[in-house]
Amino acid sequence: MIIILRDSAKDEQVDELIDRLNKLDVKANLVEGVHQRIITLIGDTTKIDMDSVQAMEIVEQVKRVQEPYKKANRRFHPDDTVIDVKGRKLGGGTLNIIAGPCSVETEEQLITTAVAVKEAGATMLRGGAFKPRTSPYAFQGLGAEGIRLLIEARKITGLPIVTEIMDLKDIDLFADVDVIQVGARNMQNFTLLKELGHCDKPILLKRGLSSTLQELLMSAEYIMAGGNEKVILCERGIRTFEPKTRNTLDLSAVPLLKYHSHLPVVIDPSHATGIAALVEPMSLAAVASGCDALEIEVHRDPKNAWSDGAQSLTPEAFSKTMEKIKALAEFCGRPVDKN
Amino acid sequence: MIIILRDSAKDEQVDELIDRLNKLDVKANLVEGVHQRIITLIGDTTKIDMDSVQAMEIVEQVKRVQEPYKKANRRFHPDDTVIDVKGRKLGGGTLNIIAGPCSVETEEQLITTAVAVKEAGATMLRGGAFKPRTSPYAFQGLGAEGIRLLIEARKITGLPIVTEIMDLKDIDLFADVDVIQVGARNMQNFTLLKELGHCDKPILLKRGLSSTLQELLMSAEYIMAGGNEKVILCERGIRTFEPKTRNTLDLSAVPLLKYHSHLPVVIDPSHATGIAALVEPMSLAAVASGCDALEIEVHRDPKNAWSDGAQSLTPEAFSKTMEKIKALAEFCGRPVDKN
Amino acid sequence: MIIILRDSAKDEQVDELIDRLNKLDVKANLVEGVHQRIITLIGDTTKIDMDSVQAMEIVEQVKRVQEPYKKANRRFHPDDTVIDVKGRKLGGGTLNIIAGPCSVETEEQLITTAVAVKEAGATMLRGGAFKPRTSPYAFQGLGAEGIRLLIEARKITGLPIVTEIMDLKDIDLFADVDVIQVGARNMQNFTLLKELGHCDKPILLKRGLSSTLQELLMSAEYIMAGGNEKVILCERGIRTFEPKTRNTLDLSAVPLLKYHSHLPVVIDPSHATGIAALVEPMSLAAVASGCDALEIEVHRDPKNAWSDGAQSLTPEAFSKTMEKIKALAEFCGRPVDKN
Amino acid sequence: MIIILRDSAKDEQVDELIDRLNKLDVKANLVEGVHQRIITLIGDTTKIDMDSVQAMEIVEQVKRVQEPYKKANRRFHPDDTVIDVKGRKLGGGTLNIIAGPCSVETEEQLITTAVAVKEAGATMLRGGAFKPRTSPYAFQGLGAEGIRLLIEARKITGLPIVTEIMDLKDIDLFADVDVIQVGARNMQNFTLLKELGHCDKPILLKRGLSSTLQELLMSAEYIMAGGNEKVILCERGIRTFEPKTRNTLDLSAVPLLKYHSHLPVVIDPSHATGIAALVEPMSLAAVASGCDALEIEVHRDPKNAWSDGAQSLTPEAFSKTMEKIKALAEFCGRPVDKN
Repeated sequence: MIIILRDSAKDEQVDELIDRLNKLDVKANLVEGVHQRIITLIGDTTKIDMDSVQAMEIVEQVKRVQEPYKKANRRFHPDDTVIDVKGRKLGGGTLNIIAGPCSVETEEQLITTAVAVKEAGATMLRGGAFKPRTSPYAFQGLGAEGIRLLIEARKITGLPIVTEIMDLKDIDLFADVDVIQVGARNMQNFTLLKELGHCDKPILLKRGLSSTLQELLMSAEYIMAGGNEKVILCERGIRTFEPKTRNTLDLSAVPLLKYHSHLPVVIDPSHATGIAALVEPMSLAAVASGCDALEIEVHRDPKNAWSDGAQSLTPEAFSKTMEKIKALAEFCGRPVDKN
Repeated sequence: MIIILRDSAKDEQVDELIDRLNKLDVKANLVEGVHQRIITLIGDTTKIDMDSVQAMEIVEQVKRVQEPYKKANRRFHPDDTVIDVKGRKLGGGTLNIIAGPCSVETEEQLITTAVAVKEAGATMLRGGAFKPRTSPYAFQGLGAEGIRLLIEARKITGLPIVTEIMDLKDIDLFADVDVIQVGARNMQNFTLLKELGHCDKPILLKRGLSSTLQELLMSAEYIMAGGNEKVILCERGIRTFEPKTRNTLDLSAVPLLKYHSHLPVVIDPSHATGIAALVEPMSLAAVASGCDALEIEVHRDPKNAWSDGAQSLTPEAFSKTMEKIKALAEFCGRPVDKN
Repeated sequence: MIIILRDSAKDEQVDELIDRLNKLDVKANLVEGVHQRIITLIGDTTKIDMDSVQAMEIVEQVKRVQEPYKKANRRFHPDDTVIDVKGRKLGGGTLNIIAGPCSVETEEQLITTAVAVKEAGATMLRGGAFKPRTSPYAFQGLGAEGIRLLIEARKITGLPIVTEIMDLKDIDLFADVDVIQVGARNMQNFTLLKELGHCDKPILLKRGLSSTLQELLMSAEYIMAGGNEKVILCERGIRTFEPKTRNTLDLSAVPLLKYHSHLPVVIDPSHATGIAALVEPMSLAAVASGCDALEIEVHRDPKNAWSDGAQSLTPEAFSKTMEKIKALAEFCGRPVDKN
Repeated sequence: MIIILRDSAKDEQVDELIDRLNKLDVKANLVEGVHQRIITLIGDTTKIDMDSVQAMEIVEQVKRVQEPYKKANRRFHPDDTVIDVKGRKLGGGTLNIIAGPCSVETEEQLITTAVAVKEAGATMLRGGAFKPRTSPYAFQGLGAEGIRLLIEARKITGLPIVTEIMDLKDIDLFADVDVIQVGARNMQNFTLLKELGHCDKPILLKRGLSSTLQELLMSAEYIMAGGNEKVILCERGIRTFEPKTRNTLDLSAVPLLKYHSHLPVVIDPSHATGIAALVEPMSLAAVASGCDALEIEVHRDPKNAWSDGAQSLTPEAFSKTMEKIKALAEFCGRPVDKN
């Protein structure tokens, strides 16, 4: 941590600050220059509150040098974390494909789609039982019944299931789910994150619409700090001024997250773009950038989907896209995992 | 709602779409042009899912004309909503000042600050008992004990209390709170919003860091749809590329929210800027723009605050700022409410 | 400047770097810690290229501490710069109002509007002769004839004229203009800025749509480095994700620019919002925040304006708004300048 | 174009508006509904100024349906434009690689780098002679001498040269250049764009840091409207809130620009990320997304580069990256062009 002092800071004030800092298990050094004096802090600064230092009248600016996360930090855990989901290895050098409908609607819809995505090569099944919808008048998901249907679909296809939790009151319903997803809007629902830190299931954590990569890693740290180290990071588009896409897919997130962290990284091209025709090119780009998995929306009849139809592929389109993804993944040396 | 058709759409496909739409209680008209055909929909389109229309292969684009919110919409409720909080009238032509520490830390800290802000003219007391912190290693709030201390502070000062809920499991603890705040990170915690729709307390709803004003109004609609129409909207800064401030205060939100909605509007200059020195000029600007209330962080000793010290005013600074706010509010014809 | 070293940096590499830096007239200090080593640089770092330091394989990150601008920096020029424009004092404690049509269209249109804004209390006249339009098919301005008409309008009203230059090839046409405006799209047209550094007229420099405040100050520095210190900074809205306004007015820019620089600050609420109804509340907010001037679009017949009609006030609306601005400016102790 | 009327609009005002619109060579239809009346306009609305319609007091909102560009529009030019640059075919199904230093510094530096990138498989040489630098104190480019050196490098390597123009006063110096680049900061320098519309060289047009794809296409339209249809579009990162990268690479731009336009699309991963280590993964992702060319910065000694060292590859690193690019491009069916 670096503390830049104001010109007006008096020597005794500076000394007092240094004394105070030295008591916090860090080593504070004063560096004096012509136009500026700065204090450098070395040691474990994770617990120093930047804001209260910033609040001092003698302080012009505070800059953090060390990342404020530890368990998610590759610096302290150089090896890739590999998360086993019923035999699929997320982060282990293969490519996983999580596919399925945005929402679970009916048994027939889900099973048909699940069978189709399995057929096409998907390695896990996604489907929303609890749906975060911006309008209170829109379909809100089947809830417990949706989870029951997902489990049913798993029986038939053998695909592990991934589904979103919206509130910790529902956590018991997720007892038999394989991967619990935390949506973008809940990325900083810290109460939920803490609770998920106490369960032993993999958590697929989506980046918030305007969250920095560091904030995503801090949210992963919340879960990991509780003891659950099986966190999967997901980039699903960030909010920018460009109106042609729902969000802007930030693919640089793949190499950056892999540089700063050891956790597996998933790309969701469906939500990132909001446009079915962009799912294939963005999936291929994501594979080439080195991601560990893709999460893709597939609906048997997008124009009658109860949510997110515009970005869903039909099973036929998904099957064609999967052919390209499989070939590219093979070429890139990280073949699609077994399904 | 306007549906723009692709050039390739065949007449029978278009007819089929129009038939389908006409069954949904809206009136669909085809308008044919040289380069483009469009369908206009008139009626209550609130329940039509734009995404599934967008998913049709004959559809190029869908644009919404009518706002998707009703209860929060000034079009249907032309008069200002006035929310009574123990005699203070939010939205009734006066200016309310909600002041206090970011976090409740100790009894002594809270009471001292509460007495000081009351003295300076604040009309309500704020203080966080549950704190959403980006780091799991940061102070997370006193919880139930924090609420107990706020109630204590209300006894002494008579100021109604405003405090944030982070999860609906805690809702019983808020039984004796005057205004329940929903933080920016929870603006789209739809499960929480629905639950708050069933309580009878005023809800201070903060705009998410990258939420549009329409999304803020949709979140207000979630609460109102449940029956609780006492929603107070709060702009607290949005995320942009500018690094000098924590967020960018979007003051245009004041006249725009008041044009589109009848609900009261609060500005939080402390979180919006993250810099104590900007609180006064932005407070004055907010008053001049016509807001109904300000929410300002005050801490007796910002450099020792357990959270958000950098943006907190000392009681002395707050008192000086209040003198200017009071004079300006008086001048603008919306004097500070009684305290 | 702070250089954070990678864990892998070898001692001899670090020594070599320090030697190299010490040759650049700065003092480099190595600070060693448990997890991290950093080098602090003290002295005039303006000329050190952060990118080439960043390019070294032993460097993890480079952070600048000192601002890279000097002439625009309040640290080195504590007193406010006051710019005299035919007797109006920009930055001298009064409020200036620059008003007029977006584009100069006809003599009659310009003169009528000029007389009306003078009548209402405007202190300078604005009008575009060269118009930056996103479409090549839109009206591009009257060019030289537009400037002739502005000079004509000045003769009649006595108001100094402010008009935009788009390319330095036209600079001779601006010989008799009072203030040369550089538009947002040209804020980083460095060739133009350099040339303007050699003229002796005040330059009104608009912030780019996605420029940081530091970049705005660096562009001011370009002009000032050439010898012309009469730069007026203008905030006119930045680009964000919010679709209801054309741009988002960043009013925090007023106190921040005044803290970091000694130059006068203008707010343009017309372009910032793009909506005539928002001009009045945002003008009042800007005055309360402490700006030195407002730039407001006024058109005698907005619906027939050749550009930017949606954000222009009629002379009647402007006159009413001016009454409120005058009263508020008086109240705030910075009365509207003489006109 | 769709015009949404205010509730308060009187019938005679609506009739008058429709009459007026019908005179503009478009067909205006009134569609009446329960809560809203709208007017639909069909025909060539390119020349209707949305702003002046928006300015009418009876108008609530105006929405454009048809794109405001024609020559750049795939709707009217379904076939891909192929631009021949000394035998390389941009947009013709191959992949071009434009590589070289950010700035031309010395003859030796340029020639060494040019020979190295040719060797590695680059198909064109880039190098800046005129440099847009945010600081007036930074190296500004060699100017005419830089162009002379580029021509020299072309003689030796046979690679066509791409270099940036900053101001139209310099245009004669570009007479012997193969591709003229317009930088992000000049994307809306309309005077320059118009002039380039009268030359017969290919123009590589970079997207502005906060420009929408539609604005990029409108700027292409400026050049094409003047008669020069050889425009190459370039995505080079947009500005967002994420601080880890210089900009955010928006790869969705590739399929979207190719859907809306027939012009070739280039990706610049060096400027988009600002980090050398991200250039390879983002280049591969760009190839997989279907781009026509990559523009990559290569510097023989990045840590001593006079500009943009942090994002430049060494010739060795470039050569390794090229191996992967060549293999992937071959695999994707769009092999690297001849060099």
